Amino acid sequence: MRKVFQEELKSVHDDLVEIARLVATALDKAIESFQSADVDLAQEVIAEDARIDFRQSALDERAIDILALQGPVASDLRTLVGSLRMSASLERMGDLARHVAQLARLRFPESAVPESLTKTFARMAELDRSIIADVAELLETHDLSLVAKIQGANAEIDDLHAGVFRAIADSSWTGSPALAVDAALASRYFERFADHGVSVSRKVSYLVTGEWDGDMTSN
Amino acid sequence: MRKVFQEELKSVHDDLVEIARLVATALDKAIESFQSADVDLAQEVIAEDARIDFRQSALDERAIDILALQGPVASDLRTLVGSLRMSASLERMGDLARHVAQLARLRFPESAVPESLTKTFARMAELDRSIIADVAELLETHDLSLVAKIQGANAEIDDLHAGVFRAIADSSWTGSPALAVDAALASRYFERFADHGVSVSRKVSYLVTGEWDGDMTSN
Repeated sequence: MRKVFQEELKSVHDDLVEIARLVATALDKAIESFQSADVDLAQEVIAEDARIDFRQSALDERAIDILALQGPVASDLRTLVGSLRMSASLERMGDLARHVAQLARLRFPESAVPESLTKTFARMAELDRSIIADVAELLETHDLSLVAKIQGANAEIDDLHAGVFRAIADSSWTGSPALAVDAALASRYFERFADHGVSVSRKVSYLVTGEWDGDMTSN
Repeated sequence: MRKVFQEELKSVHDDLVEIARLVATALDKAIESFQSADVDLAQEVIAEDARIDFRQSALDERAIDILALQGPVASDLRTLVGSLRMSASLERMGDLARHVAQLARLRFPESAVPESLTKTFARMAELDRSIIADVAELLETHDLSLVAKIQGANAEIDDLHAGVFRAIADSSWTGSPALAVDAALASRYFERFADHGVSVSRKVSYLVTGEWDGDMTSN
């Protein structure tokens, strides 16, 4: 019985890692579609997001079944409830990748990336890529040194995000209002993506160490 | 023992209703600060959001304690896990009210509402107000007739949201790019707020009837 239970917990864990990897792939394609105005790739991300949503629902159902059948306590209980939270964050990250792809599709054949912000968005994309890769790795290995790395990347994204808003509000901005909106939304999607990555990393850290690293409310 | 357990479930339920009412108050003030560029009121919403976050954390901790100590099964288990989900949605709705207030504070002493969209935003605000009032009522009474009403309001908000984006992209738009961004973000906050309201209403409906009304992925 105990062995079955440990295997069930393991399978929830493996599913979380798998969902994180699906989100990483979705983000990759979304960024590519956004940067190169590739509408087919955007369409692919949008279609495949349903698969991530389905995987999340399935994981949640399984976690609830385990709660019902095994009545776990202490750290196992927290791990299971934590999995529900983390799967919700990962699912939201998948949604945000889809939103980026939807922006690309909406503007096609134009690009949704304003010329003057190409470098900024390239850096944001790079940081989000590293965040989801690190989140997947952290979920798999529980290597807590990744937590600080994820938070560092998030801090840089916050600065870039603020910079995008300053650029739009600046009198030297020459793009159309619609392009300003695209840039603001894309920037917000990248920023939110990073934020959810931090939430997951904090949750893993809490489950491993039993201690919060600070701000409980943003989990 | 059984009686204590029922009382514990009841207290989680009461807390959810209470949080929904706090969110309703936050939204009221956020809308007022947004429409009248009242920076003090905006500041109040921003400060009070921490209280909603705290209430959510406390509720979640309690739900987890109940899971650990009582090992509930079947519908009680689903209700508790559902409460964790609903509290997360309500907390996000509080965040969105805060985001609206932050927009108001950011633009002060200017207004963040473009003149040409005053009526649209007034209607969105009215719909979101009715949604959170109905969500609180639904949580309290389980009157499922409110679910369709909430969904109807959400559908109208979706239309208004699309209209805001069309207005910004239209060649007749005369506002600055920064104002376009404010309008787009505010519109998105109102739309997301409604969406989370629908999620909560679906979850209540599921817990009461045992059946999903459709799209499982958006819960």
